[in-house]
Amino acid sequence: MSYTAELIAVGTELLLGNIANTDAQDVSRTLSELGINVYFHTVVGDNPERLKQAVAIAKSRANIIITTGGLGPTFDDLTKQTLAEAFGRKLVYNEEQAEIIEGFFKRRAHGAAMTENNLRQAMLPEDCVVFSNGCGTAPGCAFEADGTHVLMLPGPPRECRAMLASCAAPYLKKLSQSEIRSHNIHIFGLGESAVEARLHELMESMENPTLAPYAKEGEVMLRLTARARDESEAERLMAPVLEKVKSALGDIIYGIDAQSLENRAVELLRESGKSVAVAESCTGGLISKRLTDVPGASEIFPGGVTAYSARAKTALLGIAPGLIDKYGAVSRETAAAMAEGARGLFGADIGLGVTGIAGPGGDGSGLPPGTVYIALAFDGGSYCRRPGIFRADDRSHTRMLSASHALDMLRRFLTGLQVESEVF
Amino acid sequence: MSYTAELIAVGTELLLGNIANTDAQDVSRTLSELGINVYFHTVVGDNPERLKQAVAIAKSRANIIITTGGLGPTFDDLTKQTLAEAFGRKLVYNEEQAEIIEGFFKRRAHGAAMTENNLRQAMLPEDCVVFSNGCGTAPGCAFEADGTHVLMLPGPPRECRAMLASCAAPYLKKLSQSEIRSHNIHIFGLGESAVEARLHELMESMENPTLAPYAKEGEVMLRLTARARDESEAERLMAPVLEKVKSALGDIIYGIDAQSLENRAVELLRESGKSVAVAESCTGGLISKRLTDVPGASEIFPGGVTAYSARAKTALLGIAPGLIDKYGAVSRETAAAMAEGARGLFGADIGLGVTGIAGPGGDGSGLPPGTVYIALAFDGGSYCRRPGIFRADDRSHTRMLSASHALDMLRRFLTGLQVESEVF
Repeated sequence: MSYTAELIAVGTELLLGNIANTDAQDVSRTLSELGINVYFHTVVGDNPERLKQAVAIAKSRANIIITTGGLGPTFDDLTKQTLAEAFGRKLVYNEEQAEIIEGFFKRRAHGAAMTENNLRQAMLPEDCVVFSNGCGTAPGCAFEADGTHVLMLPGPPRECRAMLASCAAPYLKKLSQSEIRSHNIHIFGLGESAVEARLHELMESMENPTLAPYAKEGEVMLRLTARARDESEAERLMAPVLEKVKSALGDIIYGIDAQSLENRAVELLRESGKSVAVAESCTGGLISKRLTDVPGASEIFPGGVTAYSARAKTALLGIAPGLIDKYGAVSRETAAAMAEGARGLFGADIGLGVTGIAGPGGDGSGLPPGTVYIALAFDGGSYCRRPGIFRADDRSHTRMLSASHALDMLRRFLTGLQVESEVF
Repeated sequence: MSYTAELIAVGTELLLGNIANTDAQDVSRTLSELGINVYFHTVVGDNPERLKQAVAIAKSRANIIITTGGLGPTFDDLTKQTLAEAFGRKLVYNEEQAEIIEGFFKRRAHGAAMTENNLRQAMLPEDCVVFSNGCGTAPGCAFEADGTHVLMLPGPPRECRAMLASCAAPYLKKLSQSEIRSHNIHIFGLGESAVEARLHELMESMENPTLAPYAKEGEVMLRLTARARDESEAERLMAPVLEKVKSALGDIIYGIDAQSLENRAVELLRESGKSVAVAESCTGGLISKRLTDVPGASEIFPGGVTAYSARAKTALLGIAPGLIDKYGAVSRETAAAMAEGARGLFGADIGLGVTGIAGPGGDGSGLPPGTVYIALAFDGGSYCRRPGIFRADDRSHTRMLSASHALDMLRRFLTGLQVESEVF
């Protein structure tokens, strides 16, 4: 049979705008991967009457209701009570969960004392599937009543995500009786609409597997998802599509199931046994920060310099003052000298150098804010890339994309691809 | 009269989990500051039938309906058509908006050509208040019908936020007939629940002004909001509460209406004419990145070093190898030497040094992952702070909070406060 799910997020903090409803995004993504339709999300406060109202409406439109939030220990956490009542279930005390909750408090470093309230979390609808909470105290649960499946997940995003992956997704997978596999295709160097244009025909004709684009921070990710009886059949379904996508997009694909440009770059450096050092001006440490976001980066990253002053550029990176005077601090030549300087300073195989004007203001040179030069130096020369002028009014965007270009140049260099392409 | 608003976000990408509904958060925050109640959010796809259904339900529960999304140029953008129909309005062609849209395309750097579709955006409900779009092409609008106020805002968060501030908020303010003023109280050094505990009585008794806590990345922000006939009366209402909060929380308040710890630190450095340099190990460039997030940081930040290798720590920062051997790379002594080294290397007045184990793995020293030492060096000595062990399984949290501690030490040093307090 076909399933339609509806999400109900419970929490006054959502209605006050204290937080965004990221749980709905996490749950929705999982549901779409499972091929379960979602037509409505609802957010309601910690108010049993209005929650009952929302549940009644959802019940009339869907056969899976997933709630997030309202499982906490305080008296305004009423999701379990309200849903159990709406579906004629009693709440019963769950010994096992009570012990887990007590254990959680015993383990805690800063040992906040457990209150009686916390044990209210061990009250669960009778005959439900219990979802244990790996990150917090509130257990979730699922039950079927009147042909509707009700799933309850905790509100805190970390707890919700963890329980979604470990408990809710498997429960829903059983319903949809199919194995879901997906591959993420990571792209840097082309905008979302341009990517879609190249894949238009392919995407239009697809039903299973499906191909969905996600754009973020100057990157595009395509998620290829197949549903099948088993894993290997799902892979068989995806293989030809994956090939078509690869040949359509070529080397702007920086990884399949990679996590990020920095993860890919660190992976390639490890494989090649090479190290990289950075000298940053307008990115101000962001490249260094992104490389060290990757656990184990120390093996391939001796270090970096944020050269925000002329003194740092000349004295520390050993750039001839004359060079900066002649070409300007924001120039292809200075970027290359910074990259070479970083290489020497840290004894690395590869150096990255970035200089530019992040904005909003200019630097007096007459160059427009958003102008950035990125260089990669190696034993034998250097490459430089100058992306199109970035928006002067979006400093963080300019910095993030400049760092991404540097990491993209790195992975292109390490895989023998053309490094100097004018990407955007 | 009293107003109740309901939000309807339109967009299949929300139901697929491609993006989170941040528009709802932005709009809700504005509404709560205006004292307008919000009891429900709904998300619906680009489907006129289901949107009509959601509008009918909202109409029965609220007298203000605010939609976000579905104002785009493509044929699945049906918000205006559907809402106009639901309230018996015709859509009419708006000359002025058509010209604005054409102008937008003429101005564009990479000049994407305008299509006929774009002019569909100039169709608006008759007799509506037009909300011009400063950031994009899709105009929003508002009208009153059957005693319900309908506001339509664009979906892209940047456009939604801008139109909310410049058009929707003033429109709603007129309805609620009051002036809203608020102050943000920024706190570092105490968790949300502890802050609430200190202010419990004060917060309980409050109606106008209101005091709402927002927790994020190890910080707490209190938003104090007053409604009054005019600005000065609102300020008069807030003044005594602000004093009470200040005396209850003391110097863990790092700023009122400050933007962030880094903004506050840069501001204080400018005022004092002092400069700061950083030497980072486990934070890997994050402190440098955060300082340079602030426009104009170059005046007070000559630069920083990410010392991820022993060579960088000794050769570059001039730390005696013996010191690291004796005390370990992750120690109070090494942190202080790094801070002093950064000071010397960049000729700065103040140096910050951070060394620790971000995790998830250990460094072989036997110290638990999550152990971090942060030092501030100045002409005359150094201070060091060692926060409680961070969670080993949350590398980015450890790095972010370590950077925040360094920035907090900086602002405490510059304002003559105790720097070494064990904050967490």
